[in-house]
Formats: sequence, structure tokens, C-alpha cells
Amino acid sequence: MQRTGAEQMANIGGANLPSVASFNESVVLDTIRLAGTISRVELAQNTGLTAQTVSTITRRLLADGLIEEGAPEPSTGGKPRTPLRMNASAGAAVGVHVDPYLINVVVTDLGGNTLYTAQATPPAKSGARPFVGKIVHQIKAAIGDSAVPADRLLGIGVAVPGPLDPGTGAIRHPPNMPNLGDVPLREEIQAGLGNDKFQVVVENDATAAAIGEHWFGADSTDDFAYIYLGTGVGAGLFLGGTIYRGVTGNGGEIGHCSVDESGPACHCGNRGCLELYCSPLAIVKAARRSGRSPIGEAYAKVCADAAAGRKAARSAISVAARHLATAAQTLVNVLDIRRIVLGGPALLDEIADTYLASIRSAIDAQGYTHQVRTVTVERSRLGVDAAAFGAVSSVFHGVMAPRLPLLAEPSPTRPRSRMLTSLGR
Amino acid sequence: MQRTGAEQMANIGGANLPSVASFNESVVLDTIRLAGTISRVELAQNTGLTAQTVSTITRRLLADGLIEEGAPEPSTGGKPRTPLRMNASAGAAVGVHVDPYLINVVVTDLGGNTLYTAQATPPAKSGARPFVGKIVHQIKAAIGDSAVPADRLLGIGVAVPGPLDPGTGAIRHPPNMPNLGDVPLREEIQAGLGNDKFQVVVENDATAAAIGEHWFGADSTDDFAYIYLGTGVGAGLFLGGTIYRGVTGNGGEIGHCSVDESGPACHCGNRGCLELYCSPLAIVKAARRSGRSPIGEAYAKVCADAAAGRKAARSAISVAARHLATAAQTLVNVLDIRRIVLGGPALLDEIADTYLASIRSAIDAQGYTHQVRTVTVERSRLGVDAAAFGAVSSVFHGVMAPRLPLLAEPSPTRPRSRMLTSLGR
Repeated sequence: MQRTGAEQMANIGGANLPSVASFNESVVLDTIRLAGTISRVELAQNTGLTAQTVSTITRRLLADGLIEEGAPEPSTGGKPRTPLRMNASAGAAVGVHVDPYLINVVVTDLGGNTLYTAQATPPAKSGARPFVGKIVHQIKAAIGDSAVPADRLLGIGVAVPGPLDPGTGAIRHPPNMPNLGDVPLREEIQAGLGNDKFQVVVENDATAAAIGEHWFGADSTDDFAYIYLGTGVGAGLFLGGTIYRGVTGNGGEIGHCSVDESGPACHCGNRGCLELYCSPLAIVKAARRSGRSPIGEAYAKVCADAAAGRKAARSAISVAARHLATAAQTLVNVLDIRRIVLGGPALLDEIADTYLASIRSAIDAQGYTHQVRTVTVERSRLGVDAAAFGAVSSVFHGVMAPRLPLLAEPSPTRPRSRMLTSLGR
Repeated sequence: MQRTGAEQMANIGGANLPSVASFNESVVLDTIRLAGTISRVELAQNTGLTAQTVSTITRRLLADGLIEEGAPEPSTGGKPRTPLRMNASAGAAVGVHVDPYLINVVVTDLGGNTLYTAQATPPAKSGARPFVGKIVHQIKAAIGDSAVPADRLLGIGVAVPGPLDPGTGAIRHPPNMPNLGDVPLREEIQAGLGNDKFQVVVENDATAAAIGEHWFGADSTDDFAYIYLGTGVGAGLFLGGTIYRGVTGNGGEIGHCSVDESGPACHCGNRGCLELYCSPLAIVKAARRSGRSPIGEAYAKVCADAAAGRKAARSAISVAARHLATAAQTLVNVLDIRRIVLGGPALLDEIADTYLASIRSAIDAQGYTHQVRTVTVERSRLGVDAAAFGAVSSVFHGVMAPRLPLLAEPSPTRPRSRMLTSLGR
């Protein structure tokens, strides 16, 4: 077994000092952001950095306008502690959620304050050009109407259903969006904006939702899986304190995991995929509702009927809930996480409790899991706009999240040129 | 959504300089190890470190005896390049695989050269004391007979079935090993050895096998999932260039993922768990073989019968292969990896090809996956001793693998006191 030849190299790089400096800078910034307000002493305690390093970094962040000081707090002797907090207005981003039935745009600042919001319907015409044109139009309107100064606009995040080609941001053969199939979305949007000053980040919708949950959601930094219910079903994974994308940027694809090997054939080539039971279309079909009304309306009706106790609808929802619970259990077992977050535009109020209860009960029933962990199952705080807020936070995350060469995320859809330092102004 | 109070802190720490120095040191060492032989110029290219940093680090590693120089290679002009390689004999470790039916011990050096190997049967007597006593006895015999100098023995790795308590290295309610249930294995073995100079690392068997595959196995540094077939079924995950353990050290638990929701009830509380179809016991039952012979023998007979085309055996193996393929597909979809490795003591030659073919064909059938990745499915090179070699490499990995505070693995079963610097002598 001894190795003799020159074999494949390690794919991880060492850390030269400059990148470590900016890594520490982003660790400090992330700690301030998550804390709300925090003193320099607490910063040193929480980051493990020396007081001197914290002092140097916070001085630089203050000069850059990224953080600000509050009024000094009375101290029990010694120097009063000056609380630091993020300057929410130091930066903002546009987030676009592209869905077969909706183009949802939001603009928020770094603190998650909504500065602008708009919805539009994708064009009826077929072909990529009108669709991309509409997306670009919506982004331009958001940039114009939100009146964010150009030097504070950190970028544009676009959340789309997978599978993604990480090189171009193209959706590979999207079953629900043939118009956008294999269109190099990042370049097309960039070209449409006619301004390469704005970086465009294309992200899987479920991954975007998970990033959004970390940035704007629950007050927890624990690892979690975000089960995203939209036109399809996916999961965004937050593992080891950062977002997990996988080798090609398509991790968390639970929609095409088989939950029933003897189930029906799926367009993906597999059998009994989760999506065959849990997508709005599948649920509408299972409840045997007429397909004449638009899918969104028909789905909302099934959810309302289920809440009202109507049998066919209730049965369709409970089948979906059971399969979802199996997938959630698999995520807990494989990833060894303590938190499942459920959200997305298809998680309507009428069915949320049924889904949450089904997942909780399946996880509780597995004695095995109790022996090593307690799992919380919670609803996302981001509501039906999860993917749009997620798209915004994808930009913030790309620019500001602590990341070392070793942790480099293999997603060329996320241009690297504009890192933390670009925020200094 | 704006955060106002002092909320939970980021759980990641900044990188002060000393730990970065030792991080770079271990990146260099890992790169040399994986390369076999490599020049300083190539080291700088592959690690992204400056030539000067590489020069400083390699000088220190040479002085410590961890690496050695080969004969200078003729160069096309300029200074001849001196190849560097790991000094395999600079360190060694004991690896123990504890199984209900076997205690398997190996000793290897850093290059994977086997210095000692021995098998023993667990004691027939019930209770933890005789079992732990036997393990300790086997370790002492390995230390004595392998004649590794005490100052080169880096530690003792113990691979056991999960679920593990990461605090103590205890197996929680092991269904197949009631004798060892909740016994704080790490402390007990340490106490039995009467020498706290040797660090004892307790690791899940599937995770150990994955670490072994990375250290001694295929010539690839790609991310992978190691599907481990032993008394139970598990997976070891190598993600983002390092081993993935999960929050409690129990990641990769595919054995209790449901592959058939309407399948039989499992002792874990779930239904249709993978282990109910793929464990040797399940296969022997499914082939309806008499339970009179020991399970190992009965299982080997079923595998041989399946290879010979006998119907009941062949059917049991093909059912197991199909379910295994579903689980493998789930791992590929959730983790977004390009490599599945199959191994472990229950992967006998007679069935290996059937299993590999079943997994390959299921993955090939899923058109979805082709759009973003090509997956290789391969057999582990470590053979039936995978867990024992894995236990050895768990020690090497714990002492030497590149790891930053950010990447700190949440496994208190792995004492941290003895890091790379302890290797310098």
C-alpha cells in the first residue's frame, strides 16, 4: 500500500497570510452581525482572536463604515465598554426568485430591512429571450426604485430551481421551465444589465433559502437542513458552520431521492422520488382536483380543503407529509444534524402544522436517533419569500462570509473577484 | 428581521497565527504524503503557499524526521530539484476493529506498511469487563510484538459500530454487542493500558474505513462516501477535502435510513431500514438458511450459493443489492459527490460485482444526475481489514490532517492535546 509514484495532489491549499487577515476580518464581521451588539472584549472571547487583533480589525471595519459604535455602557470598574454593531445601511443587494409561475424581487440592506419588493408573472411567450428580458427588467426596476446608491449595491442574487451548471449558472433541462433550459443565466443577466459592476450570483433555490435562514432567520448558528417546498422539493444544507454545496453545487437534492422503490417512475429516471408525492402538482393530482385552474390556485384549494377536513385533500397531504418525514429522517441520519427547517412558497399555513408534526413524529419514533441527539423541527421565519430573501443573502454571504482557501466553495457561478475588501469604501 | 439583542454567537473562531503555522505545516505534509515524492517547487504550486514558506516548513519537517530527501533529479537548467517524501517509519499506530465476532488488530507505519496483524475471538463470557480486557490484551500484544519504539507510536485507534457517544467513545445500546453497551470505551482501554502516553481514538467503523481509504486507498483526493458493509451497514463521508462526522460524530448512518416505508419494523423504531435487507444476518434470513452455523459461516455460504446461481441465495443478494443502490443514489443526490466506495468485511468477493453493478446501474438510470456529474463506483482497496486499517489511519488523521479551528471536528473522543507538533522529536 505504500505510495511510490507522483500521485494526485491534495486539493486543498495552504493559507498565506493576506487571505488569513481577510478571513479574520470576516469572522469578526460575522460575529458582530450575529450578535446584534457586542463589545470588543466579547468579540475576542467569541472568536478566539487576541484583543490586539480584534482592535486592529474593528478599527478598519469602523473606518470602512461596515460597523458602528453605540453609546459606551457603564462598566463595573475599568474602561466603559463600547458596543459595536453592524451598519445595516452599509450595503444592500437585489434578490430575485425565478419560478415557472412567478418572478419575485426584493431588495434588502445588510440588516435584512426590506427596501423594495415586487412580483411579476413570467412572459406567456416561449423562448429564453423574453423570459430573461423580463428578469432583467424587474432587476432594473428594483435598482431604480429602491434608490440604493450604486456604491452600496453589493450585487444581484438569482435563485432558481436546480440542477444547476455551476460554470454558467444555467439550469440543466429544467422540467418545469423549458424556456430557461441550458441558458447561461448569469452571463445573460449580466449582459442584459449592461453593467458588469454588479456581480450576479445564481444559486439553487433551496440553497439560497438556507443561506437566507442563516442570515435573516432563526437565532441559531447550529447546522441544519432547510427543506424547501416550491414548484419542486429540495434541501439547502448548512453544515460545519457554512453552506454546503457539494462538488457541483447541486447538493441537497432530496426531490429525486427515492422514498418508495416500488413507486411510480419519475422523469429523472428513478422510481418513487420524493417530488412525485410532495410537489404542488403531485398533491393536486393525488387529490384528483380538476386541472383547469392554474396550479397555484388548485394547490391552494387542496391545502384549504385538507385543513377543512375534506377526505381526498387530507389524504393527499398526509401521504405527502409521510414521505417528507422519511426524507427528513434520512437527512438527519446521513448528515447528523440537530435541526430541520421547513419552508418555501408551497408551505402554506394550512398544511404547515401537518408537515411539521409528521416529521417530528417520525424522528421521535426512531429511538436510535435519541441516543445521540435531540432534533428540533421548525418552520422557516422567511415565509413564502424565502427564496427571494435567500437570493439577497447569497450575495451577502458570497461577499462577506468567513471562508478560507480550504473552504473555498466550488461554485464558479459566484465570482470571487469581489471579496470582503471590496466593501471598504 | 433586524437583529437587536445580543444573540447567539458565531460558532467559528478566528485563526491566530500559531495555529495557521501548524495548519500550513500539515497541508505541506499531507501534500507530500499524497504525492509520494514531490519537489519544493511543485509543493508551492500545489499548496498555493509561497516558495519561502514551503522552504521554511520543509526545513522544519526534515529536522523533525517526518520527511526525507531523495537524490536530486537532473533538471533542464537551473538548480537540480530534490524530491521530498514522507519518512514512513517516523510514526506508527495500532488499529483495532471491534466486532461482535472478531477483534482484528493491525499495526502499520505512516506509509501503510503492515508491521503486525492478529485476530482474536471476543470472550464467550458476558459483561463488559472480559470484553474490554481482551481488547486491551490484544493491544498490548500488538505493541510488544510489533516492537515499534514507544516514541514513534502515535496512538491506538479503535473502530466500533455506532451509534457512538462522542464524549466517552461509548457505543449507545449496540444491538449486536450488548456487552459493550454504554461502556466508556476510550477511558476503559486507556485505563487498561495503564499508560496515558498513548492516545486512544474511538471511531465509528464506517468513518474509520473512509479515513483509511483516504490514507491508504485509491489514488484520489475527491470527495466520496464509503459504504461500509460489516455486521451492520453504514457510510463514512469524506467531504470538502476532509472527513465529515456530523454534529455528534454519527454522520453517514445509512443503515437506519428507510428504503421502503412499507417494509418491516426495525429495532430502531423506523420501518424498512437499509440494514434490514443488507446486513449478513438479514441476508442469511432472507435466503432461509438454517441458523445453526455461526452467522459468518452461514453468510459466506449464502454468498457462495448466490455466485453459484442458487435461487434463494441469489434472490436475497439481489434484493440487498437493489436496496443498497437506492441508498447510494440518495448519498449521491444529497451530498453531490462523484465517487462511491464500497467495502468492509461483509463485502465478500462472491457478491462484490453484483453490488457494484447494481449501484452503477441505478446511478446510470438517473438521467438527472448525468446532467451535473459523472459518478464512479469502486471497490475499496482495503479489503476485509478496512476497519482495522481505518482505525490506524484515524490516529494518523487525528494527529496530522490539516485542520483549522473553523474545521475543528466535534469529536471529544479524539483528544486534541497531541497535534502535529507532538510529532517533532
